Amino acid sequence: MQKMVEPMGFTRIKRVAPIDAMTHGGRAKCLQRLIRLDFPLPPTVSLSFEEVNRIASGHLPDMNKLISSLGEAPLMSVRPSSQDPDWGGPQAMLNVGMNDDRHAELASTLGQDQADQLYRDFVRRYAVSVSRLDEDIFEVSGKDAGADLARLLAAYETETETRFPQDPAEQLTAVLRSMSRAWSGTTARLLRQARGAPADAGLGLVVQRMALGVGLGESGQGVIRFVDMDNGAPNVLGRYIPQSLGFPAQVGSGDDNGLTRGTGNLKDSQPEIFQELLRLGDLSRNKLREEMQIEFTLENGTLSVLDAIRVQRSTRASLRVATDLARDGVITKGEALLRIEPRSLSELLHPQVDPKGDRDTVLTGLGASPGAAVGRIVFTADAAQQAAARGEASVLVTRETTPDDIRGMHAASAVLTQRGGMTSHAAVIARGLGLPCIVGATEMKISKKADRFATPDGRKFQEGDIITIDGTSGTVLAGAAQMLALEQEDALQTVLSWADEVRDIGVRANVDSRAEAMVARAFGAEGIGLCRTEHMFFEEDRLVVMRELIFSDETADRAAALERLLPMQRADFIELFRAMPGHPVCIRLFDPPLHEFLPSDRAGIQDLAEALDLPMSDVARRISDLSEVNPMLGMRGVRLGITVPEIYEMQARAIFEAAVAVAKDGAPVVPEVMIPLVSARKEVELVRASVDAVAAAVHAETGVEFEYTLGVMVETPRAALRAGQIAPHVSFLSFGTNDLTQMTYGLSRDDAGRFMSDYVKRGVFKEDPFHILDEYGVGELLLLGAERGRKAKPDLRVSICGEHGGNPESIAFCRNAGFDYVSCSPFRVPVAKLAAAHLALRQSVSG
Amino acid sequence: MQKMVEPMGFTRIKRVAPIDAMTHGGRAKCLQRLIRLDFPLPPTVSLSFEEVNRIASGHLPDMNKLISSLGEAPLMSVRPSSQDPDWGGPQAMLNVGMNDDRHAELASTLGQDQADQLYRDFVRRYAVSVSRLDEDIFEVSGKDAGADLARLLAAYETETETRFPQDPAEQLTAVLRSMSRAWSGTTARLLRQARGAPADAGLGLVVQRMALGVGLGESGQGVIRFVDMDNGAPNVLGRYIPQSLGFPAQVGSGDDNGLTRGTGNLKDSQPEIFQELLRLGDLSRNKLREEMQIEFTLENGTLSVLDAIRVQRSTRASLRVATDLARDGVITKGEALLRIEPRSLSELLHPQVDPKGDRDTVLTGLGASPGAAVGRIVFTADAAQQAAARGEASVLVTRETTPDDIRGMHAASAVLTQRGGMTSHAAVIARGLGLPCIVGATEMKISKKADRFATPDGRKFQEGDIITIDGTSGTVLAGAAQMLALEQEDALQTVLSWADEVRDIGVRANVDSRAEAMVARAFGAEGIGLCRTEHMFFEEDRLVVMRELIFSDETADRAAALERLLPMQRADFIELFRAMPGHPVCIRLFDPPLHEFLPSDRAGIQDLAEALDLPMSDVARRISDLSEVNPMLGMRGVRLGITVPEIYEMQARAIFEAAVAVAKDGAPVVPEVMIPLVSARKEVELVRASVDAVAAAVHAETGVEFEYTLGVMVETPRAALRAGQIAPHVSFLSFGTNDLTQMTYGLSRDDAGRFMSDYVKRGVFKEDPFHILDEYGVGELLLLGAERGRKAKPDLRVSICGEHGGNPESIAFCRNAGFDYVSCSPFRVPVAKLAAAHLALRQSVSG
Repeated sequence: MQKMVEPMGFTRIKRVAPIDAMTHGGRAKCLQRLIRLDFPLPPTVSLSFEEVNRIASGHLPDMNKLISSLGEAPLMSVRPSSQDPDWGGPQAMLNVGMNDDRHAELASTLGQDQADQLYRDFVRRYAVSVSRLDEDIFEVSGKDAGADLARLLAAYETETETRFPQDPAEQLTAVLRSMSRAWSGTTARLLRQARGAPADAGLGLVVQRMALGVGLGESGQGVIRFVDMDNGAPNVLGRYIPQSLGFPAQVGSGDDNGLTRGTGNLKDSQPEIFQELLRLGDLSRNKLREEMQIEFTLENGTLSVLDAIRVQRSTRASLRVATDLARDGVITKGEALLRIEPRSLSELLHPQVDPKGDRDTVLTGLGASPGAAVGRIVFTADAAQQAAARGEASVLVTRETTPDDIRGMHAASAVLTQRGGMTSHAAVIARGLGLPCIVGATEMKISKKADRFATPDGRKFQEGDIITIDGTSGTVLAGAAQMLALEQEDALQTVLSWADEVRDIGVRANVDSRAEAMVARAFGAEGIGLCRTEHMFFEEDRLVVMRELIFSDETADRAAALERLLPMQRADFIELFRAMPGHPVCIRLFDPPLHEFLPSDRAGIQDLAEALDLPMSDVARRISDLSEVNPMLGMRGVRLGITVPEIYEMQARAIFEAAVAVAKDGAPVVPEVMIPLVSARKEVELVRASVDAVAAAVHAETGVEFEYTLGVMVETPRAALRAGQIAPHVSFLSFGTNDLTQMTYGLSRDDAGRFMSDYVKRGVFKEDPFHILDEYGVGELLLLGAERGRKAKPDLRVSICGEHGGNPESIAFCRNAGFDYVSCSPFRVPVAKLAAAHLALRQSVSG
Repeated sequence: MQKMVEPMGFTRIKRVAPIDAMTHGGRAKCLQRLIRLDFPLPPTVSLSFEEVNRIASGHLPDMNKLISSLGEAPLMSVRPSSQDPDWGGPQAMLNVGMNDDRHAELASTLGQDQADQLYRDFVRRYAVSVSRLDEDIFEVSGKDAGADLARLLAAYETETETRFPQDPAEQLTAVLRSMSRAWSGTTARLLRQARGAPADAGLGLVVQRMALGVGLGESGQGVIRFVDMDNGAPNVLGRYIPQSLGFPAQVGSGDDNGLTRGTGNLKDSQPEIFQELLRLGDLSRNKLREEMQIEFTLENGTLSVLDAIRVQRSTRASLRVATDLARDGVITKGEALLRIEPRSLSELLHPQVDPKGDRDTVLTGLGASPGAAVGRIVFTADAAQQAAARGEASVLVTRETTPDDIRGMHAASAVLTQRGGMTSHAAVIARGLGLPCIVGATEMKISKKADRFATPDGRKFQEGDIITIDGTSGTVLAGAAQMLALEQEDALQTVLSWADEVRDIGVRANVDSRAEAMVARAFGAEGIGLCRTEHMFFEEDRLVVMRELIFSDETADRAAALERLLPMQRADFIELFRAMPGHPVCIRLFDPPLHEFLPSDRAGIQDLAEALDLPMSDVARRISDLSEVNPMLGMRGVRLGITVPEIYEMQARAIFEAAVAVAKDGAPVVPEVMIPLVSARKEVELVRASVDAVAAAVHAETGVEFEYTLGVMVETPRAALRAGQIAPHVSFLSFGTNDLTQMTYGLSRDDAGRFMSDYVKRGVFKEDPFHILDEYGVGELLLLGAERGRKAKPDLRVSICGEHGGNPESIAFCRNAGFDYVSCSPFRVPVAKLAAAHLALRQSVSG
């Protein structure tokens, strides 16, 4: 459509002929809205995604016509206009059109110095960004050659063997082409994809006549905004620089209170202009329904607004801004929720190092991305992914990161690099991912093989050692530092309560301990969707008993060991139930293979032989008997439960006795007993009979009534396919998508690390299916299982409790499939709640 | 119905009122048919399954009425009448009704001696079978007390504290009840289930008035049949014993030529009777349409036919009889095929030890089940199942077997026991399963822990050692004895050619070597459905190169190793193709994880370090790098093919160069290239591009045109679910049900042995899914995959190539699903062909 009206390949932005962000980008659209609000904008032209794309391949609009549409011999700015401003884009280019003639002209009106500086700034910027010259060429023996315009132009000519371009059309052509190409570069593409842009996201460009911030009358450049970028609180911030040339005042640089404080501040020196800016701010907030940052120029006392962008903000600030706008009636609560990216919430929940705790600082660097994290050292992106596959937090330590490392960074809990600054690859990506990051830790000595590092005072660290990264202060601490309890943000609680009002799918937490349960409850989890009981057996005192159990040949010995485990388990469950009063708690029965509880090294075997008073050879043989070729596919879960039924009986008893104990507290928990690794109906029947018998016994012994339900964790493809046969025997099905993904792909998460990044890079798998739910294969089994289960038992409760449960995409999938709830890690609960609210809101809007 | 007519709970067999084998058993039905053919049968009564079942729980028919319906004061025989005579049943009981009075009466007519012997035989039999006394009680200091009737009756009375029962009704009641209960016993149940009987198979009983083979005129008992039981050739065989008492002539015992040869043979002594028997034989063959064995009695010159049963026959004989009957027009070809149980054919194919080869005999015992097999020693049924899971032949060596071992015996290739005789558990079951078996190897000294055994001359054998069991001669040979080339039976070839005429699903063979290919071709396999190429890399000379490949860090080194493997692989394929001229050969690309090619013990690692001239630590590290937590779910199959593409490229080149080489022979093979372990469409696209490029290169280099197709081995649930996306890129899908079963159940075949027998025994799994295809879970994936694949690509070839491919049940499943072919081990090809013919025939009969 645009092309038909403007066959030359650009669009002069006017009140009429609406500009679409989907074709011309957000900035172009925003500028049109400013024009419609009568903001004093200089003439502006927009180039659509398609037009910019054609520029990259050499199809140019009529440059002279474009330039003349901006008025007579304009100096021009060129700014990116991508569909979503968050996707980034090339840096703006100012004063395009500057040449010897304009220089002479400006020297006569503004004076030689200002004209020189204007020209010098432009030449340097053009040389570096457009002609792709090295900035070094302008440095001569430490002294900045750029101080002298003539030498600068000569250096350019020497390097390029051409004179600095004098034709504004030639300059503009080169600028547009350069920006268009930068957009297609790998780094830019990966960066914006990490921010959620599609692979084919387009770039629009905006060319605007410059209003100069220098002149004989009151002139200058400034930027103003009305909220604090860090916390979102109302405040007039920004700066104004009289007689400013070149770039407009950079956000965040220098004094941010320059508009209202200090000598000659704008508020006092130009009260009318200041009031006008406040009026424009109000207008934009109410009409654009957003907190905007306005970039303006005074040229001989005349105010021009060059651009207005959404105020950049921290996640914390974005919550405050959104809730404030909603409270002021500018936007609805629903809109407020939709303005907060669910994944960003996890950033708010990043733990911080407790400043009062002991700090064993071993290295310092630049705090490139805030928050703190504890993890085991890994030296490669692959190792980080493998650690993530094992559910282990890792800190990626490396000389510097490259685009190849992005997936590894995604998998790590924190990043530490020897090289680089605040805008290094590691720093930029880590901030984008909300990952604590320290860069430029130049004193760190990484070994030649990159498998260990040393600190200046000679301390050595190797793979697997635990360190803490404090990305806020830029310090590396040995071991696991003490963390601050997480602050409960008012705005976060507001957002979560609004989300609760609209979402229509439940959110529970995967919780193995009381501490995690407390976190889950603080975030408003509606119960526990998965409690893995085996973690309870790995604690030192239980491990000993567990091993005695494994080595019991006689039923009587086994009974004795279980007798000792029973009160421990019961105490575990009482703690857990008390942390979740009145809520459902879903407990998965014992799942792992027994050999996980046995030592594998000689020393451990010897210790165990001593503890059990057995010959070492007996212990070694037993361990070897229990070892498995493919433990993932072996004697575990319900198979163990059926073969050694005493274990499940003990657990059922512990659960029911705990339920009886907490029933007396007045907020009875409804325990849900979940059977792992089911593949056949009969397995469920057998366990159900045994669990029901234990429940009846506990009821008879205590005289206390209690409710419970029994269900199946669907982790094998067969359980999903046979859900129709299984469902009549249970109250719920919960899909364990971790194992289900492994079996559907025939792919072990532990072993996939070796080729997964290669596979994803080459597009063999679109995404790592352990990270993003595979909606086609695994997803179909979820749909089939849910449908068949519910057909056989209409009131069947259906949920997902794999690690995918906290991903917005998986929540959307489960909600579409009519699942009752998702269950995810406690820290993902806010993310899940907000994501669920988004889905409900989007549906109510669209349909 | 029967019950309404005969409220007393028995049926007198007459010409009218048809007897149904489904309710009264095959014998009762057969006896009615004899009556209708005017065979001279004594009065006979039939008790239905239901009636016999009620007898076990104490509900008896009116005994006096039953007895009197057989004439006045009869002596009676009681015989089992199960639905299928092959399912067995309790042994017949004769002369029921014998007591002191009858004894005195017979003494007066027949003489004291004969009367005494008749009574003695009955008392002994009754005491052992009905009263369940120990036979020992009749032995007094080595001398048979039974020789004296009075002492025998006294011994009975001493042992039971009651007089030997005198009331015929009481005797008959006890006999009927005893037989009814024996039928429900565990051994009987397992035995008949091993022969294909359903769990609830019923037992009918037939009570008949005895015709005595003793008397003053020409009297005697005999049995006659008209074919050889071993080979099915026409021949009048059997025996006749004048003045014979007690049991009728036992089949197979004594001289089988007694009717036609020797002094006083029936043919010469009673030519009219003999001719009448031949006439009855012809009549039964033509009217009952089966080779029958007739049991007869002469009582004072009068011929009575007591019973006629289908001639027991070896599998070999059953083929001859069926094809002869069809050739004579008595039955159709189709009926002939349906009379041969497909699974029984595998018995015919049992190899025999070459009598001309070296025999290193280490032990001897009773040859309890014919045929010979080579295998590795295992000492437990579980170990046998695990060996089978690994695809290894095993010999189960044990003191004696119990019903618990039946599944283990099923998994073993042969059985050797220290104890037992020809009717021991091991012997009976092994014959039922057609498994070479030696029992009573009493000189074998099994160690206390049952983990090794020694021979009389002190040679020691332990688990994993290879031995040969010659079940025909009863000798155990050390090592793998030389085997006879399999004889090609005429009747077998006839059956297979008739089967080929009617079956409507293809049968190919899974073949890894030229030798196997020759066997497959001899059995008429229609090509190779699965050639696992990795076995080719385990041969000594290749293993060295393979290891060099694995240790190549540089692309150039890798290329050099592959360059050496290429001619070896090409030679493999040329051999294979030449063994299958004009047939399709489906080659699966490299599948196993690389670490399978590396040593795991210290000595092996040291050897390898020396061979590669590397430090041992490097070799150990590399091995550890490649080790996997769950190798089944790891870096193998297409994952390896994509990550190290040179391997598949080498294999594709070897295949195509071999195809070019054999094309010159004039019977070009159509190679089919199969990609293993696919889980995503893109994997197929990548390999397809690479294989197609190699084919184009080989075509360009050689100038020879050749055809090939490319397909996918469906082994992951996801590949089945995504068949619709995969199919457009391939020509065929072949379901590898071994791996598919593992992933659908989340169950490794290597690790399932520890609980599988428990699971099957408790009915958790109805059958071991690695043995019998799981039609519900895995089967649904087969159906979904085939349907989706064909919808996307109508001419897609679909097949099964897992080990289930040779099972009649799986073939039925695949045929119903419209699969193009099944592929199974070469020795299963005849079974598969006949099973497929049965399916087509049954369908044409039923619909």
